[in-house]
Amino acid sequence: MMIGVGGNNGTTLCATILANRHNMVWHTKEGIQQPNYIGSLLRASTVRIGTDPVTGKDVHVPVSDVLPMVHPNDLVLGGWDISSVALDKAMERARVLDYDLQRQVAPHLAVIGKPLPSIYYPDFIAANQEARADNLIPGNDKQAHLEHIRADIRKFKEDNGLDRIVVFWTANTERYSDIIPGVNDTADNLLASINSSHPEVSPSTLFAVAAILEGEPFVNGAPQNTFVPGVIQLAERHQSFIGGDDLKSGQTKLKSVLAEFLVNAGIKPLSIASYNHLGNNDGHNLSAERQFKSKEISKSSVVDDMVDANRLLYKAPEIGPKGVPVGKGEHPDHIVVIKYVPAVGDSKRAIDEYYSEIFCGGRNTISIFNECEDSLLATPLILDLTILTELLTRVKYRKMSGETKEFVPLYPVLSLLSYMLKAPLVKPGTDVVNSLNRQRNALESFLKACVGLESNSDLLLETRIW
Amino acid sequence: MMIGVGGNNGTTLCATILANRHNMVWHTKEGIQQPNYIGSLLRASTVRIGTDPVTGKDVHVPVSDVLPMVHPNDLVLGGWDISSVALDKAMERARVLDYDLQRQVAPHLAVIGKPLPSIYYPDFIAANQEARADNLIPGNDKQAHLEHIRADIRKFKEDNGLDRIVVFWTANTERYSDIIPGVNDTADNLLASINSSHPEVSPSTLFAVAAILEGEPFVNGAPQNTFVPGVIQLAERHQSFIGGDDLKSGQTKLKSVLAEFLVNAGIKPLSIASYNHLGNNDGHNLSAERQFKSKEISKSSVVDDMVDANRLLYKAPEIGPKGVPVGKGEHPDHIVVIKYVPAVGDSKRAIDEYYSEIFCGGRNTISIFNECEDSLLATPLILDLTILTELLTRVKYRKMSGETKEFVPLYPVLSLLSYMLKAPLVKPGTDVVNSLNRQRNALESFLKACVGLESNSDLLLETRIW
Amino acid sequence: MMIGVGGNNGTTLCATILANRHNMVWHTKEGIQQPNYIGSLLRASTVRIGTDPVTGKDVHVPVSDVLPMVHPNDLVLGGWDISSVALDKAMERARVLDYDLQRQVAPHLAVIGKPLPSIYYPDFIAANQEARADNLIPGNDKQAHLEHIRADIRKFKEDNGLDRIVVFWTANTERYSDIIPGVNDTADNLLASINSSHPEVSPSTLFAVAAILEGEPFVNGAPQNTFVPGVIQLAERHQSFIGGDDLKSGQTKLKSVLAEFLVNAGIKPLSIASYNHLGNNDGHNLSAERQFKSKEISKSSVVDDMVDANRLLYKAPEIGPKGVPVGKGEHPDHIVVIKYVPAVGDSKRAIDEYYSEIFCGGRNTISIFNECEDSLLATPLILDLTILTELLTRVKYRKMSGETKEFVPLYPVLSLLSYMLKAPLVKPGTDVVNSLNRQRNALESFLKACVGLESNSDLLLETRIW
Amino acid sequence: MMIGVGGNNGTTLCATILANRHNMVWHTKEGIQQPNYIGSLLRASTVRIGTDPVTGKDVHVPVSDVLPMVHPNDLVLGGWDISSVALDKAMERARVLDYDLQRQVAPHLAVIGKPLPSIYYPDFIAANQEARADNLIPGNDKQAHLEHIRADIRKFKEDNGLDRIVVFWTANTERYSDIIPGVNDTADNLLASINSSHPEVSPSTLFAVAAILEGEPFVNGAPQNTFVPGVIQLAERHQSFIGGDDLKSGQTKLKSVLAEFLVNAGIKPLSIASYNHLGNNDGHNLSAERQFKSKEISKSSVVDDMVDANRLLYKAPEIGPKGVPVGKGEHPDHIVVIKYVPAVGDSKRAIDEYYSEIFCGGRNTISIFNECEDSLLATPLILDLTILTELLTRVKYRKMSGETKEFVPLYPVLSLLSYMLKAPLVKPGTDVVNSLNRQRNALESFLKACVGLESNSDLLLETRIW
Repeated sequence: MMIGVGGNNGTTLCATILANRHNMVWHTKEGIQQPNYIGSLLRASTVRIGTDPVTGKDVHVPVSDVLPMVHPNDLVLGGWDISSVALDKAMERARVLDYDLQRQVAPHLAVIGKPLPSIYYPDFIAANQEARADNLIPGNDKQAHLEHIRADIRKFKEDNGLDRIVVFWTANTERYSDIIPGVNDTADNLLASINSSHPEVSPSTLFAVAAILEGEPFVNGAPQNTFVPGVIQLAERHQSFIGGDDLKSGQTKLKSVLAEFLVNAGIKPLSIASYNHLGNNDGHNLSAERQFKSKEISKSSVVDDMVDANRLLYKAPEIGPKGVPVGKGEHPDHIVVIKYVPAVGDSKRAIDEYYSEIFCGGRNTISIFNECEDSLLATPLILDLTILTELLTRVKYRKMSGETKEFVPLYPVLSLLSYMLKAPLVKPGTDVVNSLNRQRNALESFLKACVGLESNSDLLLETRIW
Repeated sequence: MMIGVGGNNGTTLCATILANRHNMVWHTKEGIQQPNYIGSLLRASTVRIGTDPVTGKDVHVPVSDVLPMVHPNDLVLGGWDISSVALDKAMERARVLDYDLQRQVAPHLAVIGKPLPSIYYPDFIAANQEARADNLIPGNDKQAHLEHIRADIRKFKEDNGLDRIVVFWTANTERYSDIIPGVNDTADNLLASINSSHPEVSPSTLFAVAAILEGEPFVNGAPQNTFVPGVIQLAERHQSFIGGDDLKSGQTKLKSVLAEFLVNAGIKPLSIASYNHLGNNDGHNLSAERQFKSKEISKSSVVDDMVDANRLLYKAPEIGPKGVPVGKGEHPDHIVVIKYVPAVGDSKRAIDEYYSEIFCGGRNTISIFNECEDSLLATPLILDLTILTELLTRVKYRKMSGETKEFVPLYPVLSLLSYMLKAPLVKPGTDVVNSLNRQRNALESFLKACVGLESNSDLLLETRIW
Repeated sequence: MMIGVGGNNGTTLCATILANRHNMVWHTKEGIQQPNYIGSLLRASTVRIGTDPVTGKDVHVPVSDVLPMVHPNDLVLGGWDISSVALDKAMERARVLDYDLQRQVAPHLAVIGKPLPSIYYPDFIAANQEARADNLIPGNDKQAHLEHIRADIRKFKEDNGLDRIVVFWTANTERYSDIIPGVNDTADNLLASINSSHPEVSPSTLFAVAAILEGEPFVNGAPQNTFVPGVIQLAERHQSFIGGDDLKSGQTKLKSVLAEFLVNAGIKPLSIASYNHLGNNDGHNLSAERQFKSKEISKSSVVDDMVDANRLLYKAPEIGPKGVPVGKGEHPDHIVVIKYVPAVGDSKRAIDEYYSEIFCGGRNTISIFNECEDSLLATPLILDLTILTELLTRVKYRKMSGETKEFVPLYPVLSLLSYMLKAPLVKPGTDVVNSLNRQRNALESFLKACVGLESNSDLLLETRIW
Repeated sequence: MMIGVGGNNGTTLCATILANRHNMVWHTKEGIQQPNYIGSLLRASTVRIGTDPVTGKDVHVPVSDVLPMVHPNDLVLGGWDISSVALDKAMERARVLDYDLQRQVAPHLAVIGKPLPSIYYPDFIAANQEARADNLIPGNDKQAHLEHIRADIRKFKEDNGLDRIVVFWTANTERYSDIIPGVNDTADNLLASINSSHPEVSPSTLFAVAAILEGEPFVNGAPQNTFVPGVIQLAERHQSFIGGDDLKSGQTKLKSVLAEFLVNAGIKPLSIASYNHLGNNDGHNLSAERQFKSKEISKSSVVDDMVDANRLLYKAPEIGPKGVPVGKGEHPDHIVVIKYVPAVGDSKRAIDEYYSEIFCGGRNTISIFNECEDSLLATPLILDLTILTELLTRVKYRKMSGETKEFVPLYPVLSLLSYMLKAPLVKPGTDVVNSLNRQRNALESFLKACVGLESNSDLLLETRIW
């Protein structure tokens, strides 16, 4: 169940799953196009599980074959949207999919029809979204809104005979919520604030709370701080799963790769300048200052752990009188700009310049132009997050040491989802890993560990010795 | 000892080591510049060795601290060149280093003076190099040339009281040698061919044989097939170390990162177009067809293992009647162009376009402009290769299983050097790993294993559970 | 009548004219698309004809309104092709137009059907074209071929009741013809060579001769030297019009603008590196060495006149003993590369780097990445050339000085077409003007002169004085 | 006399003129560098003055040879700065010039020493400039400041025995001044406002008034609206010359070329996205919102006249009830971003994407990455503006029609300077011409008209006819 199901990501996801499920093929100027799940880590990439003892060759299997997972074609789709436009018309408005696919899939989407009414608190998203907001749960009582959403979830589960609902925020980026003691800093305070309709409770937080209270996992695909401390505490209390934040589809993903590559090679990025423009509704909403701020925060931290890991290149912070570091130490200049340019539509352009110091004062400039249908890059990530989340709700563990223990579920904050997320939410007190390679390595290691396979060390000792 | 010590890489390496050793500082328009080893994996990057049990933070140490290694400042520098220009003048000709550094380091280089006379077989390098070839070991007798080189190595070792010489080919790219049965296919045939001055024995092969016979390691920093089968067999016979081929400094390194990133994300590169231009003597030599061919081969294979590892995206080759694959299966279009443009000098420009298929027929275009002083990117790799090679000559192992065994040195082909090499030479019969991440992971794992540390799995289980 | 009517340009031109004529609208993922003539100088750009005396504002009118010209919708389409594929199927093979337009226009193209059989001399185009060559005028007798083509032209004119045929080469790039005294150096020799089926007479030359002998204009949209001296002499003799060479659609057009901009600003380009890749049949044919050579020559001369015009920046050639310049003087390094990359299809990518010297040793680097459907850029130029050519056949002049003279037609080589051509053919003995601005200025001045309007000086004196 | 003489442009100009005057040569890593005036329209470009009657070749002469103009080496340099750093140290701080040039020129700059104290009204420039402001004319009395500046001008003229002073604003970009009736809308009101120290009178306006009252020309090289209506009226009253605004050195210059190129070719730009980053003090000042706003305005209007000139591509504004246009009609999306990135220093990077509609719904994307030392591009423009301005003060004209008239000087607003200016100031009521080609054409035509030569029509009729 998606919040924002009528948006570009929501309609693209629904349409492409239907295209895959019904095996529609369509014409483009290039010829015949088959539906597929290209761009999905789970469905379109492989993992090395060892070496063939006879040929000595590496053996790779699809990631989706390592453990039993839901097939995307089997997902049941639904959700909420503040716009009442039916899904077939919403897909057309999105301008993402080829016309001949739109033509075929439209009747199937028309069956799903209008999204469920959603929650709209104008203070949290850009003013320019108001024109779309015609499909709202009535009233201003946040407690009533919460119960409405919970009922929606229960009904959808029951109506469709489902084992599990994954609630997924793919709606507008909200502004950051202030963390206010007594308001959203603990689970109890947060629940009380909802009860009193406190203005600082955002729609996304409300949806997250609804999912947690229903015992269903919630994933935040946008950058705002939905997971205020009270939400995390509530998830821990209910042992209900949460994951986020912000789909990592393009520029930031590439940045986490390139920054790690450079720093690992002993090269010192001095500045990273990142520019974006896009013309879809996401861009429109982000053209407002406070919503852009959420995005900027999410995109900015991605190089921090690479820098912290290499204090040969970047001077460490000085240590103050009581052994506490003063400041954050040396850091590359890092700017992020997002602009709304209607003409380019969903075809997002990301431009990056990496300016680095090399040997003995030399300089290296890497300039990148990256063009892509934003929603076609993002939707497979929604799939991966949804399917992985469902899988992780089924994993249980028991510690070997100490007294005999029951099998218990994983910790509620699903940091194993980090590969698909710009600003990964992790267990409080632990480090965020932004390195895409380490994120993938972690995921592979985890999946393999579940079936008793070793991690890759790439040591390949037999190839180094006689 | 470098072959081609008077070239851009050779003089840059000598000058920068001297600058570091004597701690010269110099003026640029930006201000005061310190000498450094930025761009060296060993001297400027770190390795994660674990987690601080108190703070829970990752602990990283310089790679050079994991095991005792030679400091670059302690290397003794020398070598051969077909050009008689003294090193101070050769550095000036190279146009790589800042003027105020050149000014200070020139007297020190003048002391080293003229390179040792080298071997010039015009058939192997571009005709345009002839004008430089004024510093040659006389005659055409290849056996005599071999003995001359061996004597040079012995003398340099003795004169400088050294434990180890690393012989490093950083001279012109040669054309490929034909592999001819009876000529260079076995160690014995190769030695006989040298003895009879067979025309198909290249200068670089001759230097490699000289090093092997002297028991000193040889590294090939250029793309040609110096290591014909006879050389590898000879290295095995003498348990002498060899490594190569072709310094992986810029475009190819980035390509191995990006191709792996895309394929791992389930995205399908359809074409990779790579263009380069440069104006130094390397570019001049590569403007000849046969020399370019060597380079093209070296640069082309880098994505092969990514493709082979993901048969969800790329159709596997069909299996023929006897179970043998027919062809190589589906593969992205991949072109490589290098052009000589004198105006840009040593400031190489590498341009790449990655054109990929994403979800349901979508397309992604990533265009990259990469500009860099070629020699400032390459010389730290020469350092890393040299120091690692020396280190690996000192590692011995013993198998645990079976009867008690002596400690023995590693297998002669040093595939652990792969991170710095475009077309890594590996143990015959084993797979080439081009993935930069796996290459680095292998190196880290090896260094850590030597001191009894585990490899990184990034599983970080404690952050996933309660 | 196009030679190569079944190629990407030919089918795109036919299909889009039909779409415009029948006012078809079609769906794309962006919504509804109208047919148009965007990209045509004549139909989509304007010319300044003066200042409004009341408002003081500039007055601009469509170029097509300055003089009466044929409307593209009124053209009758036809031509030859070595491939027998009917135009509707050929359009599909081209993969240029949106599917929903293809769907609608296909029945109309099916009516035109199979192209007329054409001439195929394998020596002149790439070997990879052989598979397409299944629609040939029989035999090897070049005289018979010539007469066949002439008959085709006459029949098409008669059948369609036309005033004028413009014969347009938009087929494969041929290799250069050698200019051989006695063979193609004079009109008579050329006609004799055709009569004796001399191997050095190319298909495009044969078509040009056919058009000239029929008194119909011929335009060469490809880079080869169709217009050997004998053709030019023949055109003069018959007062029949010719124009060429090579459609200037993208990279070269931009280069003529940028090079002029830089040099006019007193900035000195040191090198221009131009790379292209494309995956259509044009690219396939150009992947052969000799055909590429034709293209390379055509693309290379474009900056020559800018350089010659500024001897403050570029040293003039030294003057030899007899007052004759030695060499060509200083010139920027200039490379051109074209590669065949099937994956990108008709979507051509042009990459340019301009590296320039600025004030006191400074450097400026401009890197450009240009992506475009090649055929959608080229076809409006075919229209412009065709319509302009027809117009120019109707212009006559009389010299004022000297005795009274008859009105006579223009000189047969139509240098006024230069704006659309990479390597403009000009009157023998006169300078080629490559500056795009001067080419357009010339065209504007000419059209305006025909109706008695002054050229633009941009002096605008009234805005400079009291 | 420059305001901001201690900034990057000011010190670069002084140092390079000294280098040229004393013919200093300096070492760079590339070898020996000569001083020059590359990048100056006047000193490094040529103008076509006709055709050689014998050879038929175009004849070009240096622009500086068409009319007698001041040689840059003969300029006497001086000016004001709010920072007291002496010019030799200021040049070092600027980090623009090669070290070995800095080394040689520093003693000469030291002789010039400290700039004259300047005017600092903190409200007009970024707060981050305060730290530099240590060299100020005392007090807050604007009338006193005006007289102080006037006295500075007179003294400098007298001390150096000069015929003419050109006062040039190359200091920080100021915020826009509000145009307030009664304050700065007329010459008299403005003088009164200065007398009463009205807060809305900016430093640049004060300098302009001082120059006008001294009868010396004033040029504004920055984007703010120095020339409030009262200044223009005052210039008219005193027949004193003014020119501006904003040096057009890089991105905007290129944009005016490319936008004109596209629209002239009948191609329709849909969006132009322009990003910049730089790390010099100009960038630092522009990182403040109000100062950036001035720059944004200046950079944004550059494509307006191309759009207005082609209403085939862009729909004209609808005409309202009283014949007045409603709105501005269709226009490409156009964004401009400037960011401060200290790491890149004076080496500005300008990134542009042009996204255009071509034939029948096709799209063209041109992405440009432009890197350059900002100050090395800008300083030759200061020279050109200064020398042209001086020249234009000497031109007089007489109208032919009507009664006999005296020769009078040109109108005070020097629109002939437009080629070097982003937002050209023109005679009130006349159109701004942003087309770089038309600007250059105007300048050429004017210079040629002064010596009785015709403008270029490029008609070249003799090449079109028999």
